[in-house]
Amino acid sequence: MGLALHTDLYELNMAASYMRRGMDQEATFSLFVRDLPERRGFLVAAGLESCLDFLERFRFEEEDLAFLRDGLGFDADTTELFRDVRFTGEVWAVPEGRIVFADEPLMEITAPIAVAQLVETYLLNIATFQTTIASKAARCRLAARDRELVDFAFRRTQGADAAMAVARTTAMVGFAATSNVEAARRYGLRTAGTMAHSYIESFPSEADAFRAFAQDFPHRTTFLVDTYDTLNGVRTAVEVIRELGLEDSLGIRLDSGDLLELSRRARAILDEAGLAHVRIFASGGLDEVEVDRLVAAGAPIDAFGIGTRMGVSADAPYLNSVYKLVEFDRRPVVKLSEEKATEPGRKQVFRGAAGDVIGLREEPPPIGAEPILVPVMRDGRRSGPRHGLDVAKRLFEADLVRLPAAATRLDDPEPPQPPFSGALRELTAQARAEALRRAGVTP
Amino acid sequence: MGLALHTDLYELNMAASYMRRGMDQEATFSLFVRDLPERRGFLVAAGLESCLDFLERFRFEEEDLAFLRDGLGFDADTTELFRDVRFTGEVWAVPEGRIVFADEPLMEITAPIAVAQLVETYLLNIATFQTTIASKAARCRLAARDRELVDFAFRRTQGADAAMAVARTTAMVGFAATSNVEAARRYGLRTAGTMAHSYIESFPSEADAFRAFAQDFPHRTTFLVDTYDTLNGVRTAVEVIRELGLEDSLGIRLDSGDLLELSRRARAILDEAGLAHVRIFASGGLDEVEVDRLVAAGAPIDAFGIGTRMGVSADAPYLNSVYKLVEFDRRPVVKLSEEKATEPGRKQVFRGAAGDVIGLREEPPPIGAEPILVPVMRDGRRSGPRHGLDVAKRLFEADLVRLPAAATRLDDPEPPQPPFSGALRELTAQARAEALRRAGVTP
Repeated sequence: MGLALHTDLYELNMAASYMRRGMDQEATFSLFVRDLPERRGFLVAAGLESCLDFLERFRFEEEDLAFLRDGLGFDADTTELFRDVRFTGEVWAVPEGRIVFADEPLMEITAPIAVAQLVETYLLNIATFQTTIASKAARCRLAARDRELVDFAFRRTQGADAAMAVARTTAMVGFAATSNVEAARRYGLRTAGTMAHSYIESFPSEADAFRAFAQDFPHRTTFLVDTYDTLNGVRTAVEVIRELGLEDSLGIRLDSGDLLELSRRARAILDEAGLAHVRIFASGGLDEVEVDRLVAAGAPIDAFGIGTRMGVSADAPYLNSVYKLVEFDRRPVVKLSEEKATEPGRKQVFRGAAGDVIGLREEPPPIGAEPILVPVMRDGRRSGPRHGLDVAKRLFEADLVRLPAAATRLDDPEPPQPPFSGALRELTAQARAEALRRAGVTP
Repeated sequence: MGLALHTDLYELNMAASYMRRGMDQEATFSLFVRDLPERRGFLVAAGLESCLDFLERFRFEEEDLAFLRDGLGFDADTTELFRDVRFTGEVWAVPEGRIVFADEPLMEITAPIAVAQLVETYLLNIATFQTTIASKAARCRLAARDRELVDFAFRRTQGADAAMAVARTTAMVGFAATSNVEAARRYGLRTAGTMAHSYIESFPSEADAFRAFAQDFPHRTTFLVDTYDTLNGVRTAVEVIRELGLEDSLGIRLDSGDLLELSRRARAILDEAGLAHVRIFASGGLDEVEVDRLVAAGAPIDAFGIGTRMGVSADAPYLNSVYKLVEFDRRPVVKLSEEKATEPGRKQVFRGAAGDVIGLREEPPPIGAEPILVPVMRDGRRSGPRHGLDVAKRLFEADLVRLPAAATRLDDPEPPQPPFSGALRELTAQARAEALRRAGVTP
């Protein structure tokens, strides 16, 4: 089945109405985040590649049409209007991995209004979710400094598909590996993982379990040491390492307790045993705040497994994203509402040494500034190659080092608020006057 | 492709180790929530049917095996061990829709330890997520009293698949409809939806837009009235209703502003125009707290569209769920850790007039109490019919009316804390002594 019914009913209603009336004028919709959650100093754009896949494949299959008719009650003539709908439009977008702020378009979609409207729900969903997670994971990355991070979120993300996106977006912002095997296959990621407490409990003793695992995986053994008593567990790991003459890729994992204190004492035990090369891995309800605390305190932890709180972006599980009509039939459009005002016209974000300016797509860039929205789709086809994760990673790293320090603070960050260009402010004033006229209000 | 790689790497490591060693003893894992989020007085079990589908289909396809070998580095002999793995075990579970509390197993899985371990990640993911959403949506249901609720969450759930589960679980707890067309198709749900602001903005005037929509959908017209000025919008809707002689299934939708005040004034305008049958629908950033406030204040709102905050369970986007080994090779198992202690053995929850008791599966139920875990799978096949949403809805309604009032409070609810039976307490004491012995500690 196609994905065309992955939409809200009202999109189908509106599209049907437009098509019945022959309203095939071009519309531009802008997808952006209105304001940042309290603890976000920046966002990391993500989800674009999935959105472009969706747009390339967008069509109503025979069984979708049957549901429009039999399930939703569209008449036969109206249903037929959906048969040939394809996304034939144009997309400008901020490439995945780039850093963005409030009001900056992540994507701008231009197409005949019916189809531009039909794709709203899916594009908003994917872009909002993946940007939410990439932005949360980037904070973990900042907290970890030079320590490695591993995505451990699969078991408690909001569904199994969400876990795939989490693994991919965490890789984008510099996570070293994931526990998620399917995601590793799909996206070519490094995997990481060891054993659970249940494994230890299935053997007569902890030492038996460690020995068995090390025999089965001599080249990738990380001993989970906290099933019974953590420091005893570390000593047992040392014994088994010696007994079996294990050498490479060794580690222990702490999954509970006071990770600062336990990591110090575990490190001391390992070092005294001449096992300075055995790494310490920590997990268990961690997020960027806890990782930051541990790293700042000098905990001798080499890598962190970050799970649930990152994987659902627990402190800010959604973004205030919108998909707003900004131009219709070449006419700039605004919404008047006080709380939800929007700026009209096709936009561009100009990124320069002094920060970003949000302007119009057609205006000349300020000297030295880079336009960060680029054309990614024309006539419904990708206008360039599909970007891999490697490209997104590079873009993220490059933008990250240019962020103001205030935006990268974990606590109480200050996100930049990019100003609007003169040309955009002028167009906004004109469009508001026109909207007031339509509303029957004399300004 | 199969879903067998929808797992964490460590599950594969452990399963490989068990199979290489011929450890095919039966293990029972218990999936439960350790403690409830602050604002939850109860949980609603959900996700079981998806989990059973997964278990029935569980197998490693040829390409999965290839990835184990080439992608993960398992040797050829070990890889072959996965070829014939199927889920041949037994599942006891709380049926979807039933209300549960902390420590009460949602599911208990008994199977040879390798496969029982392999399915952990997926089962935890699905049960945790769907129970999270069902529990949040149930709070919306409590807040709404007799008003209708519609799921509007699709655009900002954590991925498109999450949206399907949200639509299904909201229906389970009494939502009347969803905007999500694909979910309506999959699960046979009622759809609801009208128009967006962009539709209004695409016509020369609001009246033109209202007229066009009503002509195209004369039997399901809800006018979105807040694009320009809400009360003007209501008056325009009245004019169009009269002009076109519209009669049935009419409504207006308020999507911004002071919904209490606007709904009252809109109701007055409609009533004065003799349009008492035109319903008022409200949406826009609502959750159970806001719905409760509006209903308590007597807002004349007939139906609420609830979106993002419900769809991601914004105040508690995950549950502290675990999948714990409670029995291995007929031996009860506990974890000793202070923070994360677990009770051993196969369990049952006995629901009686005085509340729940958590006991052992084999102990006799207290007089008049109902065991709420039922066998749902034997030898890897469903042991009864697949339950439809209608069954889950009935179970939810029946449990809801029996909840203590303190558990149903939206603010500062008090969840019942079911006691353990004497038999379970006794088994726990025995198993702890045994675990201490294994840990080499003298009690």
